[in-house]
Amino acid sequence: MPGLTEPVTDKEAVAATRALARYGVASRYDQLPAAVVHEAARAIVNWAGCAIGASAHQTVENAWSAMRPFAGNAQATLLGRRERTDILNAALVNGISSHVLDFDDTHPDTLVHPSGPVASALFALAEHRTASGPELVNAFVTGVEVECRVARAVLPAHYDIGWHITATAGVFGAAAACARLLGLDEQRTVWALGLAATQAAGLREMFGSMAKSLHPGRAAQNGLAAALFAQAGFTSAETAIEGRRGFAHVLSTSVDIAKCVEGLGQRYELLGNTYKPFACGLVIHPVIDGCIRLREAGVRAADVERIDLKVHPLVLELTGKTAPRSGLEGKFSVFHSAAIALIDGAGGEAQFADGRVADAQVTALRERVRAHIDPGLAMDAAQVTVTLRDGVQRAVVVDHCIGSRERPLSDDQLDRKFTDQCELVLGTERTEQALSCLRRIDTLGDVRECAAVCALH
Amino acid sequence: MPGLTEPVTDKEAVAATRALARYGVASRYDQLPAAVVHEAARAIVNWAGCAIGASAHQTVENAWSAMRPFAGNAQATLLGRRERTDILNAALVNGISSHVLDFDDTHPDTLVHPSGPVASALFALAEHRTASGPELVNAFVTGVEVECRVARAVLPAHYDIGWHITATAGVFGAAAACARLLGLDEQRTVWALGLAATQAAGLREMFGSMAKSLHPGRAAQNGLAAALFAQAGFTSAETAIEGRRGFAHVLSTSVDIAKCVEGLGQRYELLGNTYKPFACGLVIHPVIDGCIRLREAGVRAADVERIDLKVHPLVLELTGKTAPRSGLEGKFSVFHSAAIALIDGAGGEAQFADGRVADAQVTALRERVRAHIDPGLAMDAAQVTVTLRDGVQRAVVVDHCIGSRERPLSDDQLDRKFTDQCELVLGTERTEQALSCLRRIDTLGDVRECAAVCALH
Repeated sequence: MPGLTEPVTDKEAVAATRALARYGVASRYDQLPAAVVHEAARAIVNWAGCAIGASAHQTVENAWSAMRPFAGNAQATLLGRRERTDILNAALVNGISSHVLDFDDTHPDTLVHPSGPVASALFALAEHRTASGPELVNAFVTGVEVECRVARAVLPAHYDIGWHITATAGVFGAAAACARLLGLDEQRTVWALGLAATQAAGLREMFGSMAKSLHPGRAAQNGLAAALFAQAGFTSAETAIEGRRGFAHVLSTSVDIAKCVEGLGQRYELLGNTYKPFACGLVIHPVIDGCIRLREAGVRAADVERIDLKVHPLVLELTGKTAPRSGLEGKFSVFHSAAIALIDGAGGEAQFADGRVADAQVTALRERVRAHIDPGLAMDAAQVTVTLRDGVQRAVVVDHCIGSRERPLSDDQLDRKFTDQCELVLGTERTEQALSCLRRIDTLGDVRECAAVCALH
Repeated sequence: MPGLTEPVTDKEAVAATRALARYGVASRYDQLPAAVVHEAARAIVNWAGCAIGASAHQTVENAWSAMRPFAGNAQATLLGRRERTDILNAALVNGISSHVLDFDDTHPDTLVHPSGPVASALFALAEHRTASGPELVNAFVTGVEVECRVARAVLPAHYDIGWHITATAGVFGAAAACARLLGLDEQRTVWALGLAATQAAGLREMFGSMAKSLHPGRAAQNGLAAALFAQAGFTSAETAIEGRRGFAHVLSTSVDIAKCVEGLGQRYELLGNTYKPFACGLVIHPVIDGCIRLREAGVRAADVERIDLKVHPLVLELTGKTAPRSGLEGKFSVFHSAAIALIDGAGGEAQFADGRVADAQVTALRERVRAHIDPGLAMDAAQVTVTLRDGVQRAVVVDHCIGSRERPLSDDQLDRKFTDQCELVLGTERTEQALSCLRRIDTLGDVRECAAVCALH
């Protein structure tokens, strides 16, 4: 690809791996539109808030206690924690903690949670090797653009088959971002993408278990490792994405390689990024939004005879657990989510605690929730109809859920989400420092300033 | 599964992940047939010889130099080297070095190279946590049995689609072996297998590049990590192999889950293991064998007008490179292999050096090799017909190649292979010590004795 402003030709579309590498090598901070830089900061704020908020979660504790005896020197921060570790383990643990509450960002067109793999890898690397804010932001954008385009090239079959696309596309994003921050040349960036391709893994079967959060962690760690290997001259195939036995054709049956490079440097996938208001799978959000609105309109849970939901088909495929046994499983139950939203008027982490899932009132209401598929509904839409004990029905139609691209969280709402997640971990003062630092990340001379305020001391 | 001597029922065949876990937990050294213990020692000797022989290979150097700045404490040996590192990086590097010369063992029924992932993980773990020879041998057998059965359950489509099955099945083998050595209970072993499933990766597109050797390295490292994670209570899905979005259905279109558990504890896949006499892809071996026999029968390369090969279809699919540019690519060229075998009368590492691939005489002969597919040929068979400049034809039919299950390398031949590979690295005396130690591994009180003599000091 000759430059960022010239269109990609057919031949280049075929050589997608190399075209993506060229894009990465050519990317410059001063060529990024202001809106893209702004969205990068929003995404990074949201990523850090999620990772800090979940930093003491059992999933994170277990992962870190498993790896700690074998980890390297104290090179990088574990967000929200006291310990420091080597950059590869930091990328792993921060990737896990950023995802464990299912509160991270979502790129709705691809179902990728883009920031976890990319930011977790980059922030760890940036602590080992000095990086300015502009360098980090540019590498972050590069990673997200590569990640989402690789995802587009293999959708929809890739996800349908059973791949957790945040893992499989995420490793490319982390590799591309780290290759950029390391300043790798085109050939080594091709290798980094190839080494990412051959480490792409992560099964949807794991949803509802701790292993789901391992996915963005490993994507971050393996993408970072891919860039480090490539830097050391460790080679891969040249056609890792588009080759006959390459990533796209092996992990999908609906391949459109041209999508890897479509609009590179012209159209920014990052601008389509969204941030969750609720701590669970995105597909349930319209239902939660609707139930909260009904509660705000005066519906009391005690009066409810039954709840009927009209939902997008993916809702039952992804979140059809009728009798969740833990908070983690509750995040994959539209039934629990509807009940708890009507009772609590919220969908935060507290609503997905083990105790709330086992609560008698919640269980009783959950059993009176019926979900009906409506293939005509958009992913961010739902209809909630409550039948009261006296026979009266109350209904709400959610066209675009809060947090969707059409109704995005404002900067203020994102800041509040960050503050809510971080205050219990970092305290008020440090939370304010961390937010202020992350908000102006593109102006920092050394991004280690951010890492320092996002850790305990 | 109630015990090792009772057949697996239909229901257990469906719950394959748990059945494999039960098998692992129930496995005992004193229940292993003597032939299985003997074959385990042969496999381990071959594995260690390959890893030591390749320990200074550029692929290994690059991998280790990439990871070294981030590695943990000196817990485990890098075979054939002076350095020690944490057990996860040791598993990675030893897994890479065991495979890089394409000289490792092969389970012909599945095309898995079984020992690299399993032994590399186990030997590293055994240095961190004392293990006796019998414990290690039992864990090794457990790993190989799980690995080969998981492979059988997804073949043939899994390999045809483009997965490097040594990587994807290998991670299960490493996880099962390490879970056994750690003494994990059934539930944690299920999680270990689940965490293996969701890390299964490795593309055939990488063949001919350094990334191919990354596969068994990562399989060893990630399988070991899976067991360590599970030990720490890090959960996975319960149906990681057989579930709708699990390993088998996501990574294959020809799934026979029952094969996961067929004959567990009754029939040993390890007894079908084979060891390569030549330092390249197994499918080329019959051709090399035939060319060496023709040379021994008096054919001189200088007299050859053309060479016609009849080969199994996989030969051209896997090793069809007509103009290899490096030694590594030469291993994937049946044309180079035929030429060099006729010229040198050998197929060792020297025949796949970069210089030999570029040699004018070799290149000239290589261009006169023609390969013809014969779907009726077995994988270990080939026919080589040489047409001399005077018009005379000389032909040899190889029914079963040297190193095949029907013509296995003897213990003496395996020992010689080990010695040939190790002497240049370890010297004569230490090579003898290492071989002696590995040969009686099932009698050792602490297998660290082996690790110590397989390293430089």
